[in-house]
Amino acid sequence: EGRSPRPLKIRRQTVLVNEIKGKPLIIASPNDDITDVAKRLVQNNVNHLPVVDSDNKLLGIVTSWDIANAVAKGENRLKDVMTKKVVIAREDEPVDVIARRIDKHEISGLPIIDKNNRVKGMITAEDISRLMCVRNVEEGV
Amino acid sequence: EGRSPRPLKIRRQTVLVNEIKGKPLIIASPNDDITDVAKRLVQNNVNHLPVVDSDNKLLGIVTSWDIANAVAKGENRLKDVMTKKVVIAREDEPVDVIARRIDKHEISGLPIIDKNNRVKGMITAEDISRLMCVRNVEEGV
Ligand SMILES: C[S@@+](CC[C@H](N)C(=O)[O-])C[C@H]1O[C@@H](n2cnc3c(N)ncnc32)[C@H](O)[C@@H]1O
Repeated sequence: EGRSPRPLKIRRQTVLVNEIKGKPLIIASPNDDITDVAKRLVQNNVNHLPVVDSDNKLLGIVTSWDIANAVAKGENRLKDVMTKKVVIAREDEPVDVIARRIDKHEISGLPIIDKNNRVKGMITAEDISRLMCVRNVEEGV
Repeated sequence: EGRSPRPLKIRRQTVLVNEIKGKPLIIASPNDDITDVAKRLVQNNVNHLPVVDSDNKLLGIVTSWDIANAVAKGENRLKDVMTKKVVIAREDEPVDVIARRIDKHEISGLPIIDKNNRVKGMITAEDISRLMCVRNVEEGV
């Protein structure tokens, strides 16, 4: 008998946040009004904008869902509908961890923050869904 | 030499659309106005509503992105902003196929349609992202 053989282990490579090809960074400022933010979302075909200061530090996030919320409540200013407590992703985190975070917080996108706390981009559930189909093709499933 | 052994094959189970636990079905009607649709999205914490007739047959889809579009363009009626050519998912399709469809069309959710062409629910990029984290936990990755 002796030592049992090391179990065969299939290791999938961990994909990190900064390996995902996201869209170019589009931002909003807290003083923007809702109509301008809505136009920016539509023109860039995105659902999420990080709200940043002049130094590109994160102040909040606004999504098209927040625009719906502004319509529902009759608000006009971004300040009043943006989310200020933001769930973020770090550049060196594994994407699986982000998938769990999206699930846990029932959100659909997270700003990606670098070591200097500056906003680098967004990672969304669509990006992760896309990754799944790429992985399955590579694995031949 | 002789026959080479069958290669060890790790088969991941294919998950089908109707095995996903989605949210309860919330719908919209083409005559709804934008403010009501916005309220329904916000109250139910969703981003997508299938637009159906009285027989639950699909007429279109409206998302919070379309609400942003309505704000950007000053439209008030759902009819004028909903998308009428809808990309759908069938109940017995594999989720991987849906992930590719989401990627291809740059959308984030598809209405699930049964054999009688009635709307059963929605499948979203968030659902697929969630599935990825469940699968990875099961596989111990
Ligand atoms: C092209 S996406 C762009 C924003 C973002 N990528 C997203 O997925 O929401 C926004 C448009 O797609 C439309 N759309 C969403 N789901 C759809 C589907 N299953 N079939 C057709 N159009 C859809 C919406 O009505 C909206 O007008």
